[in-house]
Amino acid sequence: MTMKIMIMKNILDRNQNKAGEVRAFLDERKVMMVNIISSPGAGKTTLLERTCEALAGKVRIAVIEGDVTTDRDAQRLKKYNIPIVAINTEGGCHLDSHSISKALVHFDLDSVDLIFVENVGNLICPSQFDLGETFKLAVVSTAEGDDKPAKYPMLFSQARAVILNKTDLLPYTNFRLDAFAADMASINPRITIFRTSAITGEGLQEWLAWLGKQLREFSAA
Amino acid sequence: MTMKIMIMKNILDRNQNKAGEVRAFLDERKVMMVNIISSPGAGKTTLLERTCEALAGKVRIAVIEGDVTTDRDAQRLKKYNIPIVAINTEGGCHLDSHSISKALVHFDLDSVDLIFVENVGNLICPSQFDLGETFKLAVVSTAEGDDKPAKYPMLFSQARAVILNKTDLLPYTNFRLDAFAADMASINPRITIFRTSAITGEGLQEWLAWLGKQLREFSAA
Repeated sequence: MTMKIMIMKNILDRNQNKAGEVRAFLDERKVMMVNIISSPGAGKTTLLERTCEALAGKVRIAVIEGDVTTDRDAQRLKKYNIPIVAINTEGGCHLDSHSISKALVHFDLDSVDLIFVENVGNLICPSQFDLGETFKLAVVSTAEGDDKPAKYPMLFSQARAVILNKTDLLPYTNFRLDAFAADMASINPRITIFRTSAITGEGLQEWLAWLGKQLREFSAA
Repeated sequence: MTMKIMIMKNILDRNQNKAGEVRAFLDERKVMMVNIISSPGAGKTTLLERTCEALAGKVRIAVIEGDVTTDRDAQRLKKYNIPIVAINTEGGCHLDSHSISKALVHFDLDSVDLIFVENVGNLICPSQFDLGETFKLAVVSTAEGDDKPAKYPMLFSQARAVILNKTDLLPYTNFRLDAFAADMASINPRITIFRTSAITGEGLQEWLAWLGKQLREFSAA
């Protein structure tokens, strides 16, 4: 192995060990954690806004916001009066399990059912770092084109579900739903696909119902 | 410094040294190189298609295509009968100057005026690696939202120009042109901003005229 590959393996091994600790820690406390990954601007924060509104008073949500710089996304979520920790990676291209472990200290986990982690906007690097999440959620916008799963398979092969967002833009793009579905089926046949639009509300009920089912199965496990 | 930071500094130093060599090599041969960086799906390949069509018979173009996997983008450009080298990073999140140096061997540079490098779709990591390019070109789609320069300033602070693409989608998004322009002005006051749409053709003439001017000034330098 070259020096560079050895170092990378070492970083990934250390991340994986800590991710295992985080997962065990959250499992014990019956807190489900969802690691949301997408390109910049696919709509992660807006999806979180709609989800927080729908689940207010029903599910106790906390959010960990990862950003390269600024806390703009965290600011957008403040209106829901939920616990939020903002992690500024200072140029870093992904979150890791060590930063998640430190963020968790700031929550009262006895009063939390579900933690959403909004990862840094990046389809590549965040897929390589297990955060100790219960599952990964991929978000992709129709404006990005239907070839994203084929071109960036690592995330899509690992995610439990993918949200195809901004379906209100479908009439104005050359996005082919059949090509997208075919690529997804070959990369990850078990993945659940949702089509959503924060503007028309399409698909949000299906997403929320599925999320509720994951929460119930997680709590019962 | 920690071990991780030392290693990263070493990688960046080695990249920078090789980038200097690449730049001197291309300058001597009067070949301009443009490093195109964007999120996945902002429209880099379509912009290259329109640019190759417009400049056919006028400017001798070659392309280096960077992709995490697949050669789909390189396949899309084959119809223009231009020299293309596809670099598959096998999961890597950016191109580096060493891979560019190796790719250049495959071109007959006496018959090339302009090399476009289509970097891996990623707003973060490619900004940290100088490839020896003449300048960086940022591409961002209106569907990504107007907050991308503020949230990912590194690329936008370095680029000579930014193409705001998919302006045909503006009526269907909440993109604020004034907020985008204000953020850009504070991050990089000297950057040139183009608004383009591959569908309506908006802004392509302005982009091509500006590109021609960069080429003339580069050749005369």
